[in-house]
Amino acid sequence: MTYNDTFIRACFKQDVKHVPVWYMRQAGRYDPEYRKIKEKYSLLEICRQPELAAQITMMPVHKLGVDAAILYSDIMNPVASLGIDFDIVKNIGPVIDNPIRSAADIERLRPIDVDKDLSHILETIRILDKELNVPLITFAGAPFTIASYLIEGRPSKNYILTKTMMYSEPHLWFSLMDKLGDMVITYVRSHISNGGKAIQLFDSWVGALAPKDFEKFVLPTVTRIFAELSDLNVPKIYFPGVSSGELLPRLSNLQSDVIGLDWRLSISEGRRRTSGRFAMQGNLDPFILTAPMDVIKQYAKEIIDDGIAEPGFIFNLGHGLFPEASLDKLRELTEFVHEYSASQIQS
Amino acid sequence: MTYNDTFIRACFKQDVKHVPVWYMRQAGRYDPEYRKIKEKYSLLEICRQPELAAQITMMPVHKLGVDAAILYSDIMNPVASLGIDFDIVKNIGPVIDNPIRSAADIERLRPIDVDKDLSHILETIRILDKELNVPLITFAGAPFTIASYLIEGRPSKNYILTKTMMYSEPHLWFSLMDKLGDMVITYVRSHISNGGKAIQLFDSWVGALAPKDFEKFVLPTVTRIFAELSDLNVPKIYFPGVSSGELLPRLSNLQSDVIGLDWRLSISEGRRRTSGRFAMQGNLDPFILTAPMDVIKQYAKEIIDDGIAEPGFIFNLGHGLFPEASLDKLRELTEFVHEYSASQIQS
Repeated sequence: MTYNDTFIRACFKQDVKHVPVWYMRQAGRYDPEYRKIKEKYSLLEICRQPELAAQITMMPVHKLGVDAAILYSDIMNPVASLGIDFDIVKNIGPVIDNPIRSAADIERLRPIDVDKDLSHILETIRILDKELNVPLITFAGAPFTIASYLIEGRPSKNYILTKTMMYSEPHLWFSLMDKLGDMVITYVRSHISNGGKAIQLFDSWVGALAPKDFEKFVLPTVTRIFAELSDLNVPKIYFPGVSSGELLPRLSNLQSDVIGLDWRLSISEGRRRTSGRFAMQGNLDPFILTAPMDVIKQYAKEIIDDGIAEPGFIFNLGHGLFPEASLDKLRELTEFVHEYSASQIQS
Repeated sequence: MTYNDTFIRACFKQDVKHVPVWYMRQAGRYDPEYRKIKEKYSLLEICRQPELAAQITMMPVHKLGVDAAILYSDIMNPVASLGIDFDIVKNIGPVIDNPIRSAADIERLRPIDVDKDLSHILETIRILDKELNVPLITFAGAPFTIASYLIEGRPSKNYILTKTMMYSEPHLWFSLMDKLGDMVITYVRSHISNGGKAIQLFDSWVGALAPKDFEKFVLPTVTRIFAELSDLNVPKIYFPGVSSGELLPRLSNLQSDVIGLDWRLSISEGRRRTSGRFAMQGNLDPFILTAPMDVIKQYAKEIIDDGIAEPGFIFNLGHGLFPEASLDKLRELTEFVHEYSASQIQS
């Protein structure tokens, strides 16, 4: 099979014959075959088995016909190398044994050693580089989002401890941001040198901040990450997560190629708020996938019509896929995005 | 003591000598005296004791010096009169015995009978009308937010069942919205005729929707509510909850007086998005209250400076107070808002 580079071309705002599609959490629990594997192994156990992790990464490429694969992994994986013990607990998420709360906790963090501690992830990437005929997106959690887990010790509804450190002990906060920024840069570089073809930085929870606090406490580190990765000739995506519409005007100087949007604002409004500098990725509300197929297609059509008005558009969801999603509907949606967008682009 | 009508004047964009303040959940768990009462009685048990509920409502007026009281109650209270059994479960929130999932479930809902089922709430309002020297705000949950509890059966992270009904069975959805709209109108009217001096409609979770879905599935009912209450000469506040910035341009025709904002956008941006039609209420991130007092004051100062640039501003939080908040800091913040705003308004 020939290599499908549509996703890469769209990220770089080049001409495409159809709109490329992938779905956040496309290698996940909506797929019965994956659920069966999860009965036997935990997420972290799968990540330590490169052949299996590669196989899961490829499932949605074969089953849904998506234009990019995203590495089967978890944003928490690299923090193990910093010396943080955690587990991914069913129905909860990441749970940290010793949350980061003090200067001593932050000083204790080691620099990441990818070759020593995360070689299984690099091996998975190398396997996928040989086997895939679409680009492999690898990813890292952005510093705010990782920090929120490290400080809270588990997923949080309100980020009270994270915000307490940020507002009350900004010197601690910035030293943590610095260390997590270094971690992300080294981790992402290792992905690309082992065969990753694009990178997404997930800042899933940063939309909890007011814009001026995002600008002061988070943006400098995010800016540094993309600046220090700017020599890598692969598309770089920043996904500021849900409820991040007010942050977009502050992103205009990022050296990234793509911004991911949630469903709260349109693709054209996302472009407007970022001065048209980036390709846009998104942004169907994943829960529209509970509706009948004709409703789903109507929503997808409106997003595509808006997205293709300018070069640089990747169809995705506004948030990750949920376990109750239907594989059949996702396959039909992928086909629809391809066919409808191809007809609109030709005409 | 003379009656302090500053809050009412600000809602109607009239001149004030200082910016009025109140806090969402100001009668709540941050107050040790209230926590002690809660050891003995549940929230619903307190609501059924008008003298006690009135006493709790007045606590923050005396302790913090706020310019308005808000009735001690819960947005779920009126649904009991529709025939829905629920409880407020500690550390969870409202839990419904028989969630609304079908046409039969919706048909079964009775019209609200405030005098028969909720006379204790009217009695609380009458007591407060005699005792307070600041306006009493009463409130109702808005139809989307109430529907999300009724359908999910408990607080939800993603509103999957709510959105499933909305997108897949819109006729059911609209019939539920109609019934909840009727409930709100009757309930609010009874508050005002018993001595309530202002009304806030809490649509705490409607920010989960894309703007066009808000416009299609929710706004018609919210519009009808305020239209049918328009003869009541009391300030009416619509609070579309967190992450609702993208919805604001759709609110411009509401017959309400005030819009509540979360911390994600500035007061001036809130005004801009609603064509300057409304007074604005908000919008300190409640978790800034974890910071030292000088940091809190700096954030408050910026919000006040922005808010008083136009007539019609009420200082509040962007979301409800949390149990770990400090009574002392809240008292000092209230004083600061009064004194700083008075000095700026005079000059």
